[in-house]
Amino acid sequence: MPAVSIETPELDDIREAHSRIEPHIHRTPILSSSYLNTQSGAQLYFKCENFQKTGAFKARGACNVVFGLEKSVRKRGVITHSSGNHAAALSYAAALTDTPCQIVMPTTASRAKQAAVKHYGGEIISCEPSISSREDTVSKIVEKTGAEFVHPYNDVRVITGQATCALELIEDAPSMDILVAPLGGGGLISGSLLSALYLDSSIKVIGAVPDQADDAYRSLQSGNLVSDDAPLTVADGLKVPMRETTWHFVSKYLGEIITVSEQEIIDAMKLIWERMKIIIEPSCAVPLAAILKNPDQFRNKKVGVILTGGNVDLNALPWL
Amino acid sequence: MPAVSIETPELDDIREAHSRIEPHIHRTPILSSSYLNTQSGAQLYFKCENFQKTGAFKARGACNVVFGLEKSVRKRGVITHSSGNHAAALSYAAALTDTPCQIVMPTTASRAKQAAVKHYGGEIISCEPSISSREDTVSKIVEKTGAEFVHPYNDVRVITGQATCALELIEDAPSMDILVAPLGGGGLISGSLLSALYLDSSIKVIGAVPDQADDAYRSLQSGNLVSDDAPLTVADGLKVPMRETTWHFVSKYLGEIITVSEQEIIDAMKLIWERMKIIIEPSCAVPLAAILKNPDQFRNKKVGVILTGGNVDLNALPWL
Repeated sequence: MPAVSIETPELDDIREAHSRIEPHIHRTPILSSSYLNTQSGAQLYFKCENFQKTGAFKARGACNVVFGLEKSVRKRGVITHSSGNHAAALSYAAALTDTPCQIVMPTTASRAKQAAVKHYGGEIISCEPSISSREDTVSKIVEKTGAEFVHPYNDVRVITGQATCALELIEDAPSMDILVAPLGGGGLISGSLLSALYLDSSIKVIGAVPDQADDAYRSLQSGNLVSDDAPLTVADGLKVPMRETTWHFVSKYLGEIITVSEQEIIDAMKLIWERMKIIIEPSCAVPLAAILKNPDQFRNKKVGVILTGGNVDLNALPWL
Repeated sequence: MPAVSIETPELDDIREAHSRIEPHIHRTPILSSSYLNTQSGAQLYFKCENFQKTGAFKARGACNVVFGLEKSVRKRGVITHSSGNHAAALSYAAALTDTPCQIVMPTTASRAKQAAVKHYGGEIISCEPSISSREDTVSKIVEKTGAEFVHPYNDVRVITGQATCALELIEDAPSMDILVAPLGGGGLISGSLLSALYLDSSIKVIGAVPDQADDAYRSLQSGNLVSDDAPLTVADGLKVPMRETTWHFVSKYLGEIITVSEQEIIDAMKLIWERMKIIIEPSCAVPLAAILKNPDQFRNKKVGVILTGGNVDLNALPWL
């Protein structure tokens, strides 16, 4: 693979993204729990992106891309392939700007995910449940319509948008020692690394991943991007592999990845539901699971935790 | 029944209660949902007592009573009978003041409720699952130890504490047209009526009850206190009947009660979980169910809704 030149967003780019998206995203609250502080021995600051528009931080990246497009480009529409939160987020951002939006989704995507896209006005294009079918379907449409393809994470504009989440967290909970975020495709952690670098470089950023989807962990260990296709984990938001852009930032700036078991994820998820009375996706529980598993590393530290989203199928909870 | 003289708390009493309990309760946030505003046609302001200490507004009343006791009285301890949120709340308030606390609970009480009491340091005294057994057990202990009995709601001190919830809501969301709260024993609605009366008498307070536990509705219709024993409803916090103190305030100040079906309660509960990403008890969903059932009455109104608590058995959700 030839070396790709990847532009690194500056602090000004992140601030500009923040101003651009601010009218249409929530500055989500930071919650704490005295019970979880006692359990962990740390002071935990949970950045609640489960309360974000469309129910996940993905609204940030999608809004940043769509709002930043020239009118003439927007006219041709935006397109992505996603069966997750990015699909609803792109539909949301597109609707706000009267931009046509097409979402390529496998026929196997859940009805709830399809309903969310339709709710925000996105048009669903069905494809077969394989990566090649998704990509072929997108290519054909782009060729025909000239629509702008917005990858869920392998896009510097998306990463710059996601960086606004850590930006707010660092502003609202100053002097953190550690920031823990889940790591799937790597868009959120790439953005978080950049915001920490610019705003408070003493913050140690840690990625948290499931044992059963630990390709990011093995990538960082080996120094080479390893990608597993469709690993099996309850943390469904973390099944996707890093791509060259996110791997660029992760390999350059991320110091540590912690892995946790499926049971640890489910236990941490239930603990947050029970104690904090908020609904989070399994993926968001991975950082708390990592903290509870490694008490020595986090004891007496001020730790930021990004709760990435709250879109859960309430008829299929993982502990039932 | 001889007429009882019931003292009406003044605004100063409510403010004094608020100052007394403030260091140990949360000023809970008020959340809104653009989706639910669109669905209802109203502007809804949800006062989130599910985030309150012990997971329910009951911490307010219990703290007000316990913190207000003379030291010499506290030394003899406090006692109540409850298998619900008041049990944990009284244990919490007692622990903060090193007050011995006994909770009389039927042997049939769920393990989760028992665990909550023990977590806060309360001592559980078992009794048979009948009202007479509960009351006998309490009487015998009070006779022996001189402990202070703190009824879950039939106590002006408790009502004064619960009034601080509407006090905060009225301060933080000014110019409400309507305030809707669930009505079970009547402690919360009595307090809400008083705070509205003193702070903004133009607010119309409405009680919301399940069809299947509508004794408060029938009481208000007939002008006489009707009490059903242990009605069957998914809204388990609303199974208890009003007593003379709460009936006094309800009959004097409450203008309207709306009833809703079990399915309407479950649908409204799931809607709040899905859209607001917060965990609420079935009882808290009764007001939203009442609003969605009567759109004409609430359209274009600014409506406060008290979400009373978030202690749910996550292994037994009512829609599963």
